[in-house]
Amino acid sequence: MARTRLLLSLRWGDMDAYRHVNNVELLRLLEEARVRAFGIAAPDGSAPMLATGMVVAKHTVEYLRPLDYRLAPIAVDLWVGRVGGASFEVDYEVVEPDEASAVYVKASTVCVAYDFDAARPRRLGEDERARLAGLAG
Amino acid sequence: MARTRLLLSLRWGDMDAYRHVNNVELLRLLEEARVRAFGIAAPDGSAPMLATGMVVAKHTVEYLRPLDYRLAPIAVDLWVGRVGGASFEVDYEVVEPDEASAVYVKASTVCVAYDFDAARPRRLGEDERARLAGLAG
Amino acid sequence: MARTRLLLSLRWGDMDAYRHVNNVELLRLLEEARVRAFGIAAPDGSAPMLATGMVVAKHTVEYLRPLDYRLAPIAVDLWVGRVGGASFEVDYEVVEPDEASAVYVKASTVCVAYDFDAARPRRLGEDERARLAGLAG
Amino acid sequence: MARTRLLLSLRWGDMDAYRHVNNVELLRLLEEARVRAFGIAAPDGSAPMLATGMVVAKHTVEYLRPLDYRLAPIAVDLWVGRVGGASFEVDYEVVEPDEASAVYVKASTVCVAYDFDAARPRRLGEDERARLAGLAG
Repeated sequence: MARTRLLLSLRWGDMDAYRHVNNVELLRLLEEARVRAFGIAAPDGSAPMLATGMVVAKHTVEYLRPLDYRLAPIAVDLWVGRVGGASFEVDYEVVEPDEASAVYVKASTVCVAYDFDAARPRRLGEDERARLAGLAG
Repeated sequence: MARTRLLLSLRWGDMDAYRHVNNVELLRLLEEARVRAFGIAAPDGSAPMLATGMVVAKHTVEYLRPLDYRLAPIAVDLWVGRVGGASFEVDYEVVEPDEASAVYVKASTVCVAYDFDAARPRRLGEDERARLAGLAG
Repeated sequence: MARTRLLLSLRWGDMDAYRHVNNVELLRLLEEARVRAFGIAAPDGSAPMLATGMVVAKHTVEYLRPLDYRLAPIAVDLWVGRVGGASFEVDYEVVEPDEASAVYVKASTVCVAYDFDAARPRRLGEDERARLAGLAG
Repeated sequence: MARTRLLLSLRWGDMDAYRHVNNVELLRLLEEARVRAFGIAAPDGSAPMLATGMVVAKHTVEYLRPLDYRLAPIAVDLWVGRVGGASFEVDYEVVEPDEASAVYVKASTVCVAYDFDAARPRRLGEDERARLAGLAG
């Protein structure tokens, strides 16, 4: 119920020599979706979800069908999975906007809240945990 | 009069360690504007401007002020400069959409019509030259 | 025993705004290691390991410690895991060349042999399976 | 006489859908050459050429022949052109290491010494100007 959908544009340069969107560039798109949804601004335009940014601890990415470059945006649906003391999971699907059954990529990222001034992970605050939980799938 | 404006989204990953949009990534944005305006589809949605694609022969790029990542798109204004027998010039400005006097980048690219099957440049046809001339600034 | 070590250079542009090598760019390094080891040429300089190229079906990537840009190359150790009828697994570690205990990334990729002319996966031949098995860790 | 030669490795991912090294990625290679030669460390391993880093004010890049991905490094020759009060020009050629007449790219970049703490350009010191002049072509 708390899926956030982001419509993101591809770039011609996302293609590789196989003339499909390169698998690494798809991670770049997931990064962009994650930053827009959780890092910089909440989906409703309110204050950022996280006070201090986050780092990636783990990615799991499955490529289900090739994605070709086109002018129209693609959709990245994302939601929050497990929320831990210092980390949370973001789950995503890259889908055709008008045809939710056409799934290009399924992925999951473990994000760790990180205090860049102190150069170390930090615990999530109660408020952050509550807001993240509100985005649970 | 025939400026084409494209609104393009930045990506968080376009920033470099200086925390501005990297100067190389700005070329990636110009590529995207060029492909969307001249390579794949005409601005009015009609057939592609060029039958066989194009290669880049030369770039000149001036960086006038730093561009920071943000969620809102930036504008790339582009128009056609000189049209030659086998090449044409694309001129661009990367500007703040709501404030045309805020220019981040001025650039110019010499594009050469290229026949990828034959692996060589080719002359522009009369029809192509006429359509490109219609986009002259 | 059949680990292949590749020494790869970082690029300044691999860093992101956090001033570490970006997690997505680390996938680019794994791609480069994979291409050099399995796609284009065998580690011993003989014919390519695969006749027709490969596509990525799945990545699993764990980031264990931040990697900073520096002039000296880093090491990607890779070896073949499970070999199936049409796919095989590549396992990797990104490590400090002179200090094998310093592991930055552990990752695993499921690669599918792909016939680009026919635009579909294809079964691995006996010869390919034997050569891949020879690189098993 | 004071050309500095850097041997840099290509990455498979530098290719675009045309199966040549993408023109934007060639700027990435020039950036890497510039950082290695002038930004981070002097060619002789002594202290960095510049105390505070630099930003790019202008690029001029001519693409003379297509560059294909291959395992062997390519050479970037670079030298210092005009040195001004707050800026200097870097000139480059991307060439085949064993065949200097095979030039892929000729380029020139205007670099501005930049004080990132103060967020503004700064004048080059006498020592910096002398060292840069020592790298003049």
